[in-house]
This record gives sequence, C-alpha cells and structure tokens, in this order.
Amino acid sequence: MNVIKVSEKFDMFQDHWNPRVIGSLNGQDVKIAKVQGEFVWHNHKDEDELFYIIKGSLDIHFENDIKTLKAGEMIIVPRGVEHKPVATEECWIMLFEPRSTKHTGEVIDEKTVTQFEKI
Amino acid sequence: MNVIKVSEKFDMFQDHWNPRVIGSLNGQDVKIAKVQGEFVWHNHKDEDELFYIIKGSLDIHFENDIKTLKAGEMIIVPRGVEHKPVATEECWIMLFEPRSTKHTGEVIDEKTVTQFEKI
Repeated sequence: MNVIKVSEKFDMFQDHWNPRVIGSLNGQDVKIAKVQGEFVWHNHKDEDELFYIIKGSLDIHFENDIKTLKAGEMIIVPRGVEHKPVATEECWIMLFEPRSTKHTGEVIDEKTVTQFEKI
Repeated sequence: MNVIKVSEKFDMFQDHWNPRVIGSLNGQDVKIAKVQGEFVWHNHKDEDELFYIIKGSLDIHFENDIKTLKAGEMIIVPRGVEHKPVATEECWIMLFEPRSTKHTGEVIDEKTVTQFEKI
C-alpha cells in the first residue's frame, strides 16, 4: 500500500492521449493522461466516465453542447453519451472508470490504446 | 451533466468528518470532506477506499505503519484493512468508494454519519 504521488506519475511520460493506470479499486481504474489537440468522437456503452482536471483546460464536446473544465473541476459522462475531448494546450487529466472501459469505445482510431500501461 | 467545481463544493460546508457526495458513477460515489483531528479506527469489509488529498496533509494510521499524504497525493486502502485518519490541521480530502461503503465500517462512533448529503 503506497502513497501515489500524482505529479511524479505525470513526470514518467510525455505522450498524449495514452492513459496510464495509477491505481485500481473495486473493479475501477484510476488513470492519468496528458492530452493535447482533438480526440475522437466515441462513447462507452456500459461505463460512466469521470474526468478530473489536474492542470490546464479541457473542452468536452457533446452532440449539442461543449463543456469547458479547468484544473480542480470534474465531469461525469454517463454511459452511452457521445463525447469528444479537445485541449487547445496540453492538459493533464485523471480518469475514474471501470476496468472494462475501452479507450475509444467501439471506435477504432489511430489514437486508440488497447492495453493501458501501469505506472 | 454539469461541471463539478470541487472548490465551490468545499465552500458549501464547514463541519469536519462529514463527507458529502458530489458525484456518482458505476455504483461508486465521489465524496469530499473536511477533516481535522483524529478519526476512529475502522475498516470496510467489502470496499476498497481511495483517499485523494485536495488541501493540507493527512496521516493515515495502519496497524504497523503511518502513511502521510499531502495535496495531490492518494492512497488506496484495500478492503478489510484497519485504518485511522488523523489530520493535525484542517485537511480537504476527496474519496472514491462504492456507494455501499459505511462511514466507519461496522464501528458505531459519535462521528459516524449514516446518510451522506448530496451537494
């Protein structure tokens, strides 16, 4: 049982849109990612997804809305809801979601990660 | 689907050891609490519990160890593990745990909260 220093975990990688697992509990994963630019439209059929912003700002596009999140803010995207994260500048995010959550849902994209590294 | 501004949620209460639910997903709750002083020894038989520190510093006492967490750090306490949080000065924490999690496990204490307010 170790103390997880989130900022040190962020220092361990530089690439974008490639979430790392930093903890697991109750069938859920805690992931962190650095993101910049535009992600792909997708949804998670059976999983709600929490985005918490550690640093920077993230726009999450929905079918009829855009929500802007800043550091210290979170949003829970319900299962089945189409969304597309976009970050104009580099943004650091933390995700809480079931271990079963696929990166881009049923969409396959060049950004899609199928195996999440644990750090 | 709203943006949850965590610092604004913390402004909504002042009491200690009384977690509020600020979000729910996949059968899990996201709770926040202000804590100061010493909590009660307890464990959660069937639930792993994540502590993430928003502000200040928290000592978590275990049977043979004490872990100190500072802002931006987290720990996952596995189910069944006895623990006692202690904060010398006021500390703001975020918890991620199953909705079924009882505040003080099977222990009943004057600090025990049985119904968590949603804010």
